[in-house]
Amino acid sequence: MSRVTFVAGKLGTWRIESIAAICGEGVGPAERLERIEAPQFLSPPEGGWRLCGVRSNERYTEKSERERLIAIQPPLDRMESVCASLIPIKKSEAWWALAQDERRRLFEERSKHLSIGIEYLPAVARRLYHSRDLGEAFDFLTWFEFAEKDASAFDELLRRLRDTEEWSYVEREVEIRLRRDRARD
Amino acid sequence: MSRVTFVAGKLGTWRIESIAAICGEGVGPAERLERIEAPQFLSPPEGGWRLCGVRSNERYTEKSERERLIAIQPPLDRMESVCASLIPIKKSEAWWALAQDERRRLFEERSKHLSIGIEYLPAVARRLYHSRDLGEAFDFLTWFEFAEKDASAFDELLRRLRDTEEWSYVEREVEIRLRRDRARD
Repeated sequence: MSRVTFVAGKLGTWRIESIAAICGEGVGPAERLERIEAPQFLSPPEGGWRLCGVRSNERYTEKSERERLIAIQPPLDRMESVCASLIPIKKSEAWWALAQDERRRLFEERSKHLSIGIEYLPAVARRLYHSRDLGEAFDFLTWFEFAEKDASAFDELLRRLRDTEEWSYVEREVEIRLRRDRARD
Repeated sequence: MSRVTFVAGKLGTWRIESIAAICGEGVGPAERLERIEAPQFLSPPEGGWRLCGVRSNERYTEKSERERLIAIQPPLDRMESVCASLIPIKKSEAWWALAQDERRRLFEERSKHLSIGIEYLPAVARRLYHSRDLGEAFDFLTWFEFAEKDASAFDELLRRLRDTEEWSYVEREVEIRLRRDRARD
């Protein structure tokens, strides 16, 4: 269990190219963003905002699926990953009121969330943070990194996920697109 | 998602009868305890301690199991419930590293956690709070309430659960036994 703060303001590794409110309320504008994994949450910067989350245990992934993921999922911070996206999501009370097996069925058997995601590996690196138990505005913060040449594949991934039955339970979603000024040294 | 603070010190509805470290480190002594569900966490009282948690979505319970539970589970704060217990638990990293289906199988198919619990309904009322994503010392705080006449059934419930394969993943457990001075008015 480790903590992350996404700090948006004037400083940060990532330049914010766009912030789109896909569903529900958006977030305020900012110039740059930093993803900081640290033992404590950071304060919001002056004139900016922050989102907090934790890396936590898996909630739906089964053993065989995890083995497939582990075999091909790439690390963050690859040299060629000059593009990134932060997608905060909040699901409805109706989603959270479902039993575990109902949520699992919607997540994978009906919506193929994992199976779709796997098709975009290793191009799109991903890290999921949980926020719901923290009482944050969003339930999840998902961070993605990819190379310039894979940006259109990432767009397609988002389109396919948003078209699923699972996504009918999403009541707030913001898409923040980011770019490093140059490839990592 | 609502927050709870268990505040242990000199004040509170519940008199602490005993604090037993079942596994791993215990918690400090205190005279009384209060369970406070409120929008914000409370501070620890002078010379005492607190434990924080949240009511959150179910992690293992399936639809059919929930229907059985809902049909017979009693509310908290029944007039005859003069006995209570708070059991904070921390599971090992090995538990949390398991995939969802592996944890579910250990929890119910192999250890009968829900099935055993249901045998003690409606005598033993129960409420589960999650603490792990908060970065607290424990992963769960479970609160139980029951009548004097059901105290030995509650002891039996604890013995049976501690004898399961699931409990081999428990690395810290404290059993706090409590009593109201008199039945609720």
